[in-house]
Amino acid sequence: MNLILLHPDDMTAADRARMTGRRLRHVLEVHRAGVGDELIVGMLNGRIGTGKVIRLDSSFLEMEVRFDRDPPAGSLLTVLLALPRPKVLRRVLHSLTVMGVKRIVLVNAARVEKSYWQTPFLEPDAVEHQLILGLEQARDTALPEVLLKKRFKPFVQDELPALCAGTLNLVAHPGSAETCPGMLRQPVTLAIGPEGGFVPFEIEMLAALGFTPVSLGERILNVECVVPALVSRLYLSLS
Amino acid sequence: MNLILLHPDDMTAADRARMTGRRLRHVLEVHRAGVGDELIVGMLNGRIGTGKVIRLDSSFLEMEVRFDRDPPAGSLLTVLLALPRPKVLRRVLHSLTVMGVKRIVLVNAARVEKSYWQTPFLEPDAVEHQLILGLEQARDTALPEVLLKKRFKPFVQDELPALCAGTLNLVAHPGSAETCPGMLRQPVTLAIGPEGGFVPFEIEMLAALGFTPVSLGERILNVECVVPALVSRLYLSLS
Repeated sequence: MNLILLHPDDMTAADRARMTGRRLRHVLEVHRAGVGDELIVGMLNGRIGTGKVIRLDSSFLEMEVRFDRDPPAGSLLTVLLALPRPKVLRRVLHSLTVMGVKRIVLVNAARVEKSYWQTPFLEPDAVEHQLILGLEQARDTALPEVLLKKRFKPFVQDELPALCAGTLNLVAHPGSAETCPGMLRQPVTLAIGPEGGFVPFEIEMLAALGFTPVSLGERILNVECVVPALVSRLYLSLS
Repeated sequence: MNLILLHPDDMTAADRARMTGRRLRHVLEVHRAGVGDELIVGMLNGRIGTGKVIRLDSSFLEMEVRFDRDPPAGSLLTVLLALPRPKVLRRVLHSLTVMGVKRIVLVNAARVEKSYWQTPFLEPDAVEHQLILGLEQARDTALPEVLLKKRFKPFVQDELPALCAGTLNLVAHPGSAETCPGMLRQPVTLAIGPEGGFVPFEIEMLAALGFTPVSLGERILNVECVVPALVSRLYLSLS
């Protein structure tokens, strides 16, 4: 927790925030802060600043807060990700958030197991929890938008054209001869397939919308690796 | 398992391999292969090729193997990593291997908890297990070298100068104004600190050896993200 993320409900006055639970425990046990200490805080979807501890005990934490700067800019990247298995999903939502991606579309694909759509980790609260952990790690406040698209073909035909209009469209495809570009300054929509990759039919549908298959070489990366690998490569700076 | 990694002990004849255990189960349950099917195989620290299943039942898998190509080239990067906590260590050893890093130095630092050095995940067999999983994922065969350096100062003073001679030396340091370079073609030694970063004394010792602090922007990445993010960014291709 490199930033304590505040919610409007935490504010008891214009410059006072009061917290219990996970954030209180973290400040006590990890920061080991005391009265008078200053910690970095941010308002969810708002600005970043400083919180001076004015009361801290086992029941609650009270801070005098001052917001004085904007969070890092979000990435120009939209990620279209074939739904990974639940354990991987949690980590990938976290790392996409850490990397500054602000629009994440979780989509079905032929090689996505049907059961993955039943995981409790897809429930809105569980998704938001991972996003918040990612914001706290990266020192950011802007909550990414996560869309769930359970049917590949209608999504790609009916919704994706508008979503990817005006962006450079890439699909991560191991074995593709074209190397993923880097150091870009333009918006990108990047599709990442499931373990085993998109099937040819899916690649063709994406190609019809102008998605170019790209790779990072011969290696087959797991989803946990491919997300930070591609995001950091596409842009000069993450913020 | 995108490649079935063979060990010389698996060979029962020049072109015959026999396996039990984890690889047998994976071929049965995940590949769902049958007699006559061809799978991608590789010899540990050797070449890659094809294995044709000639017998497969619950007790063992026998394949006729033919090696016909080299594994992907290894990365020109040496990673010097402050020992992370055990759970993270396993994932990072895996992702370093997936990304093609062939020399990994796990080093102590002021912000590394002493207890991390006691984890069973640092035992040679446990380390090798993660490396092998990474090779199987990436379709590689060349086992990385992992060095353990429990004392930062003597290591940096006495051993690091020879290790990083002739390479570009970088230390990942969140908040550094200098952006991490990309698309390089030269060997790099990259130091990655613990959660909370290297302390100023450690940065100074590294700087004295020519290590330049670099970052990817304002965001603070967790170790699981920073490894694939930096490796993919430093080089045009991973293989």
